[in-house]
Amino acid sequence: MFESAEIGHSIDKETFEAEVPALREALLDAQYDLKQQARFPVIVLINGIEGAGKGETVKLLNEWMDPRLIEVRTFDQQTDEELARPPAWRYWRALPPKGRMGVFFGNWYSQMLEGRVHGQFKNAVLDQAIAGAERLEQMLCDEGAVIIKFWFHLSKKQMKARLKALKSDPLHNWRISPLDWQQSQTYDRFVRFGERVLRRTGRDYAPWHVIEGVDPHYRSLAVGRILLESMQAALGNSPRKHQGNVPPLGRSIDQKSLLGALDMTLRLDKRDYEEQLVTEQARLAGLLRNKRMRHHALVAVFEGNDAAGKGGAIRRVAAALDPRQYSIVPIAAPTEEARAQPYLWRFWRHIPARGKFTIFDRSWYGRVLVERVEGFCSPADWMRAYGEINDFEEQLRNAGVVVVKFWLAIDPQTQLERFQEREQIPFKRYKITEEDWRNRDKWDVYSEAVGDMVDRTSTEIAPWTLVEANDKRWARVKVLRTINQALEAAFAKHKH
Amino acid sequence: MFESAEIGHSIDKETFEAEVPALREALLDAQYDLKQQARFPVIVLINGIEGAGKGETVKLLNEWMDPRLIEVRTFDQQTDEELARPPAWRYWRALPPKGRMGVFFGNWYSQMLEGRVHGQFKNAVLDQAIAGAERLEQMLCDEGAVIIKFWFHLSKKQMKARLKALKSDPLHNWRISPLDWQQSQTYDRFVRFGERVLRRTGRDYAPWHVIEGVDPHYRSLAVGRILLESMQAALGNSPRKHQGNVPPLGRSIDQKSLLGALDMTLRLDKRDYEEQLVTEQARLAGLLRNKRMRHHALVAVFEGNDAAGKGGAIRRVAAALDPRQYSIVPIAAPTEEARAQPYLWRFWRHIPARGKFTIFDRSWYGRVLVERVEGFCSPADWMRAYGEINDFEEQLRNAGVVVVKFWLAIDPQTQLERFQEREQIPFKRYKITEEDWRNRDKWDVYSEAVGDMVDRTSTEIAPWTLVEANDKRWARVKVLRTINQALEAAFAKHKH
Repeated sequence: MFESAEIGHSIDKETFEAEVPALREALLDAQYDLKQQARFPVIVLINGIEGAGKGETVKLLNEWMDPRLIEVRTFDQQTDEELARPPAWRYWRALPPKGRMGVFFGNWYSQMLEGRVHGQFKNAVLDQAIAGAERLEQMLCDEGAVIIKFWFHLSKKQMKARLKALKSDPLHNWRISPLDWQQSQTYDRFVRFGERVLRRTGRDYAPWHVIEGVDPHYRSLAVGRILLESMQAALGNSPRKHQGNVPPLGRSIDQKSLLGALDMTLRLDKRDYEEQLVTEQARLAGLLRNKRMRHHALVAVFEGNDAAGKGGAIRRVAAALDPRQYSIVPIAAPTEEARAQPYLWRFWRHIPARGKFTIFDRSWYGRVLVERVEGFCSPADWMRAYGEINDFEEQLRNAGVVVVKFWLAIDPQTQLERFQEREQIPFKRYKITEEDWRNRDKWDVYSEAVGDMVDRTSTEIAPWTLVEANDKRWARVKVLRTINQALEAAFAKHKH
Repeated sequence: MFESAEIGHSIDKETFEAEVPALREALLDAQYDLKQQARFPVIVLINGIEGAGKGETVKLLNEWMDPRLIEVRTFDQQTDEELARPPAWRYWRALPPKGRMGVFFGNWYSQMLEGRVHGQFKNAVLDQAIAGAERLEQMLCDEGAVIIKFWFHLSKKQMKARLKALKSDPLHNWRISPLDWQQSQTYDRFVRFGERVLRRTGRDYAPWHVIEGVDPHYRSLAVGRILLESMQAALGNSPRKHQGNVPPLGRSIDQKSLLGALDMTLRLDKRDYEEQLVTEQARLAGLLRNKRMRHHALVAVFEGNDAAGKGGAIRRVAAALDPRQYSIVPIAAPTEEARAQPYLWRFWRHIPARGKFTIFDRSWYGRVLVERVEGFCSPADWMRAYGEINDFEEQLRNAGVVVVKFWLAIDPQTQLERFQEREQIPFKRYKITEEDWRNRDKWDVYSEAVGDMVDRTSTEIAPWTLVEANDKRWARVKVLRTINQALEAAFAKHKH
């Protein structure tokens, strides 16, 4: 969930300074429209890692926009008045009225996370707090509010560097946080429970936006843009969220993306490949025969660019296995039977029983890839799919199913070569269609959908593995090794 | 929440037999329309007390309707196949496709309730299961499904009689239930946790219908009617719930109602009244000075028919108290400031701090009373208000606030006399307006709204007290005594 926010997003000073004036003007316009229409309030939630620029960003927003129409509320320690009343009272009294914007700096999420990180309660109580937050936000959205949720992220290394820098800065050493961020464990726990919170509360009507906090230019521009687009979408549309008015996800504003950050030159020579392949295949066969497998099932999801080598990778996985133990489920367009059911129905049908292994050749992610890009479903439908998928995979994981997910990535040039090769070779010609050529034209839109997908569904319980697949050998070995590592990790966990 | 289902609803045989043919025909028509349109599935959930006629009703529905278009699924013990997969798999495989109806007899709610009643887990885990059910149902409704949830209720006494009768019936002694209903404690716990489940999961898009299970004619007709109206509403409207297509609540089909069941002849003579009034006032003053009050606050809500005597009752409550300790909040139409905020905002403002007492003269229930009846808000808005209000009151209760709610009921004749009296007496004339006379014409609609309100918001944490107020003396003493009992119960609980 935080992968995209650890790839070193940055915007250079010139670009930043060139972009800011227009952004500021548009933000001011949006503010005045908001005031004019007075149809709904905007609630901005600021959360995330210490030192990731939360405070600076809020300060900047106040400079950029008309501060008379923004109210920034910091929720630190509860006051006496607040302590004497139900916990939500402090938020209710600070709600911005229709036409205004409220920035909640420290809010219901910070409170529940602090409690959980400090070990004051366990996951069941955290989940109660999450359900309470969901009810609150759903009510606010039903009442017309636009909720924009930012999570400022830093990698652990970045955070440590940042805290060090801040320490020596007299302007910043007033910071007090109830969590001791100097402790390595605090970061780990905060990120782990933070992911749980984001996974559960990222809803179509109030999605999260994860912002990499290292570069001030990047984070300021990213936040400003998302704020602007969300406000514009709501101002231009009907007042009710549920009528298809889905807030926009942010676009990449520098040239960096998760897929772009892959090292596409990675490769294996033939000899290493053959040796490693046999090793990993034997390891997988052994793991699936292991008696611990009785407590688990295995699901492997294969997605990727056309001609990225999904089929070949799947064959190498299956090669060493007993056919009674695994099955391969190819996913194409839904049948009439499947269309008469909720979207996830046809995948639930194929969930493996304990001890079994199911390989999905394409999967439920079609909803947020092809269906999104081709417009086969409404934005509201694919927006809510992220949450539904996380919920689905969490249920799998809770039942002992190990879920591994692969995106096989190739670059456009490699794809072109493979397409051309397929057209040359008679027995491969069936593999290439007009549609494949058409999809190539949508390379960028697909890449954006892949980025959003990974950002919103790569979770601790079911992480995505991006596979550099320009070299098929590298890809196949990486896939097998990832599956083996996931199984071993699950077995080890179960043992304790 | 179950009050309306303990008042002895019944339908005589002749009425029943006269009504059934038309109902059956309409149900069959709806079934064929459903099949024809094939736009959505209908999912019927059957839950409730053992012996309340769940099985008989399902059997009857199958007789009344075309069984080829209904699939009844019983979820008892999990099969081996089910046990090897995530718990929800059994429901997914049984989902009816678009155009069909599925009756889920035993379902996610029965499973979570059994676990909780057996003490396998505590409320936090029950709440996780509730949140899971909410996510599942929200997803199903987002996908277009119509979910109709029935809770069959019996009072404890009725249940015991019914179990005894069933025991000697050879047709019924095959019943197996994982809960031992012969145990008095089982009933109490089932009802208590059942109420928690209903309170949390009664949503505008999938409300609960509580059915009194004693009389077979009544329960069959009630269920048939609700089924029919829900299907007709969905068939005639747009396919998406959120676009204002709110499933109808059931109407009373016999002449019985909670308000009608009140004994309106209850009265106190002057001497008893004066004695008891002074006693209860002194008791209240003492309780509010008690040091345990430091851990609590008190909220009293007064609703009732026009001229039912709310003002007089409130004055008698306030009479003996220190004005620094209580405040009276009269609720009229919302101001412009309040209209710029979510509905509950203006009530949150007046939540008393610990140690304090707030009297609401009319309240947040305006949403489901006057706003509903007069059409000041959309059906979707007042339908979701029940859940929002329960959530609000639960937060109050969790913070130590004792919530007592009064509906002061008078009959139409008494109201007429009081109106006329008010018009005669100069200093009372300001109390009577044109609007009061207009409201009289809507007596039945208001009564229905009151019934729904009590059914959906009278909870263990904040029960409604219906006050027979034809006699003002009786009403005032009952109000004071109820407040005192609620405070004493809270203090006693806190002590342990």
